[in-house]
Amino acid sequence: MSTVETQLLDRFEQHVEELKQYCSIASVSTDPAYAPEVQRAARFIADRMARAGLERVEILPTDGHPAVTAEWCHAPGAPTVLVYGHYDVQPPDPVELWSSPPFEPEIRDGRLYARGASDDKGPSLIPILVAEAFLQREGGLPVNLKFLYEGEEECGSAHLEALVAAEAKRLAADVVLSADGAMWRPDLPTVTVASRGMLALELELHGAGKDLHSGRHGGSAPNPLPALARLLATLHDDAGEVAVAGFHDGITPPDPKLIEAIQASGFDPQGYFATIGAPAPQPMPTAEELLVRQWLKPTLELNGITGGYGGPGSKTVIPAKAGAKITCRLVAGQDPDRVFDAIEAHLRQHVPAGVRLEIRRQGPGSPAFALPADQPVLALTEGVLGELFGQPPLRVAMGATIPIGGVFREILGIETVFFSFSTADEDYHSPNEFFRLERFRDGLVGWARLLPRLAGHSRG
Amino acid sequence: MSTVETQLLDRFEQHVEELKQYCSIASVSTDPAYAPEVQRAARFIADRMARAGLERVEILPTDGHPAVTAEWCHAPGAPTVLVYGHYDVQPPDPVELWSSPPFEPEIRDGRLYARGASDDKGPSLIPILVAEAFLQREGGLPVNLKFLYEGEEECGSAHLEALVAAEAKRLAADVVLSADGAMWRPDLPTVTVASRGMLALELELHGAGKDLHSGRHGGSAPNPLPALARLLATLHDDAGEVAVAGFHDGITPPDPKLIEAIQASGFDPQGYFATIGAPAPQPMPTAEELLVRQWLKPTLELNGITGGYGGPGSKTVIPAKAGAKITCRLVAGQDPDRVFDAIEAHLRQHVPAGVRLEIRRQGPGSPAFALPADQPVLALTEGVLGELFGQPPLRVAMGATIPIGGVFREILGIETVFFSFSTADEDYHSPNEFFRLERFRDGLVGWARLLPRLAGHSRG
Repeated sequence: MSTVETQLLDRFEQHVEELKQYCSIASVSTDPAYAPEVQRAARFIADRMARAGLERVEILPTDGHPAVTAEWCHAPGAPTVLVYGHYDVQPPDPVELWSSPPFEPEIRDGRLYARGASDDKGPSLIPILVAEAFLQREGGLPVNLKFLYEGEEECGSAHLEALVAAEAKRLAADVVLSADGAMWRPDLPTVTVASRGMLALELELHGAGKDLHSGRHGGSAPNPLPALARLLATLHDDAGEVAVAGFHDGITPPDPKLIEAIQASGFDPQGYFATIGAPAPQPMPTAEELLVRQWLKPTLELNGITGGYGGPGSKTVIPAKAGAKITCRLVAGQDPDRVFDAIEAHLRQHVPAGVRLEIRRQGPGSPAFALPADQPVLALTEGVLGELFGQPPLRVAMGATIPIGGVFREILGIETVFFSFSTADEDYHSPNEFFRLERFRDGLVGWARLLPRLAGHSRG
Repeated sequence: MSTVETQLLDRFEQHVEELKQYCSIASVSTDPAYAPEVQRAARFIADRMARAGLERVEILPTDGHPAVTAEWCHAPGAPTVLVYGHYDVQPPDPVELWSSPPFEPEIRDGRLYARGASDDKGPSLIPILVAEAFLQREGGLPVNLKFLYEGEEECGSAHLEALVAAEAKRLAADVVLSADGAMWRPDLPTVTVASRGMLALELELHGAGKDLHSGRHGGSAPNPLPALARLLATLHDDAGEVAVAGFHDGITPPDPKLIEAIQASGFDPQGYFATIGAPAPQPMPTAEELLVRQWLKPTLELNGITGGYGGPGSKTVIPAKAGAKITCRLVAGQDPDRVFDAIEAHLRQHVPAGVRLEIRRQGPGSPAFALPADQPVLALTEGVLGELFGQPPLRVAMGATIPIGGVFREILGIETVFFSFSTADEDYHSPNEFFRLERFRDGLVGWARLLPRLAGHSRG
């Protein structure tokens, strides 16, 4: 064991206390009422970076909550690694379901319970503590290290892209290591190498100029509701596959290791449907079918439909309009613009007679994130995790969208490798969020082992 | 001109003043705040019936607003006619759009402007005034006359059926003449001989036990929204016809005079779509096609759909459930129970896999109303209208549902003939409701001519 690792483990209790202190700050970014606490968390983590010996520590304002940056760049010839994390947390609601108050951290059964403990205060405190140990024990770091911790991850990272663009020079690096993210399951070491992209739009069908009485006008006036049903029903085929011409254009095959991981994952379809409380499909899909659909296939998902009367009882109305909200999850190779064009063309082609169609795109969307299978830092993280967990980690994808991978690739031209020690079951968007202290320890050791190995990684 | 007609016309100004007084009472039945005014209107019309010389005048309580009854039954051997009307009115909102206050009746350009003037205070005051004239000029009526004026027509006649059943003996008659209803167009005398029935239901599709994140679960979790779209899309065929097996069972052909009336009506399809503000269909249906669809064909109309997110922007949710509200308009021969069974069977057969279907029926519904084409009182009313307007009236249907025809047929075993002098363009559910004073005069003469002719009508 290196002296760095020794120091980190010797001081483990103290680091847990620091984490509890950090977690006692209610840095809820979505609710303006918590703004002073968000500020306090930014100062806390900036102070901690400075105390660790990091340099150029700054709280950078944005049009929303500030970001915190720091660096140590005295390893000439060695690569530069940008560590990403966030200091803001999800709202604690519903507070009454917490066993201990969300901002009064409490340890029970080897778990630290507090809002933000797992997402992302615990995992993102780790690289700061590891940097400190290197600086104290070895007088320097094996690589050039930069930090970017934002305060708006839980409310959509609205100002991250502008900040990265404005500070591109300060943040220039060879690779991003994200301390945010999560391992898929507690019983299985995993690395996330892909996430689906996103495209959002809404459509509206217009019939008459105002709501009409369905007794008087039923049969002669156009009703946008059945027109909407007919139009939406064309979007998928009988098997549930997206039936929009051009939607799948350009899709590239996923990292073959993802398929291997799915096969090796022991995922339980029966358990999945039980967990979400849905009727078990007949026939039950295989684990591979299900995870491929969740991770590696695109979706065109309806998120909402509206039109006419929704209250109790009945109302004899033919509504003037009806609408639907759609989000697509995109996979590697799909271009959000081309997908939007394909959907728009499909809708215009299939809109039933007698109604007028309006389509609105919601934002630019984002392409899928997929780390190249041969990304060298990915192999290094897999090596460290394999040592820590006694088995090589599986490469997994996630169905949801991680925008930071796209932001860093597009603006800084570098890949993002996820190296987080939180686990997806730690209730980080629910009451009773916790962080396993064992994973906190694993994380300290893991980062301490990874940094020296990154030094050998060729730059750029 | 009979002395009865002469008296009615001599006192026309005075009767207009009485109608203004009646219309100054804000008998809005839907809003509990107006309850004292509803009571006041009941007393007003009961007093007027008594002053007219009618007997057994009573204000009969119901579980809602009371009904007013009266009678004059001293014409042995002559038929008994039950006159139906209502003394309650629609809410006046939006009040700011009225040119004169809704309960301060004002005459402009030969029209009496007031809430309730056309629906139904003007038309229902007429038979009371006519009865009075007969009793004063001739010492008796040509037929036995009974009156039933309810106070809940504008809020769904919720207690009418129970009242008619409880008072079946008091109300026993050979035919109902409804002073409620409306002629279709001011330029064309019409009698309404059919209206569509009604059946209401709602359905819900359930997927997972709770709302899910559409990124994480999209592709693997069931989404009730596309399932709803697919299910609803099976309810109609490509031509918009109801595609539910058994839905059309038992339909009987309409009165052939209705088709003749449609052909003779000069209805303007182009104008219809312009009026409702809907895109003009290509090709434009003929007048006959359009009115047959509005009056004589059944509908299965979607009145509302709900599910998932409906607010601004997008939300990445797979909702746990989605629903739709449906009302059907039924035509002669369709049984609401059988139609419900047919729809339920269709829905259960077509529900997509992976979601659970719930169906709820809303109330018993009501069958269509269709007066037999050879109903003798119908011919008498047509004769009177032909004299008054200089041309024979057209027989028309209406797309909306008139429940009273079914109530009187089912409980009292008698038909309802509509003999109203209001016109459908008199804004009776909108601001600036008015009643043409010319029609008030026509109504007085019309009822004065009809009653003696009813005496010749064979009983039962």
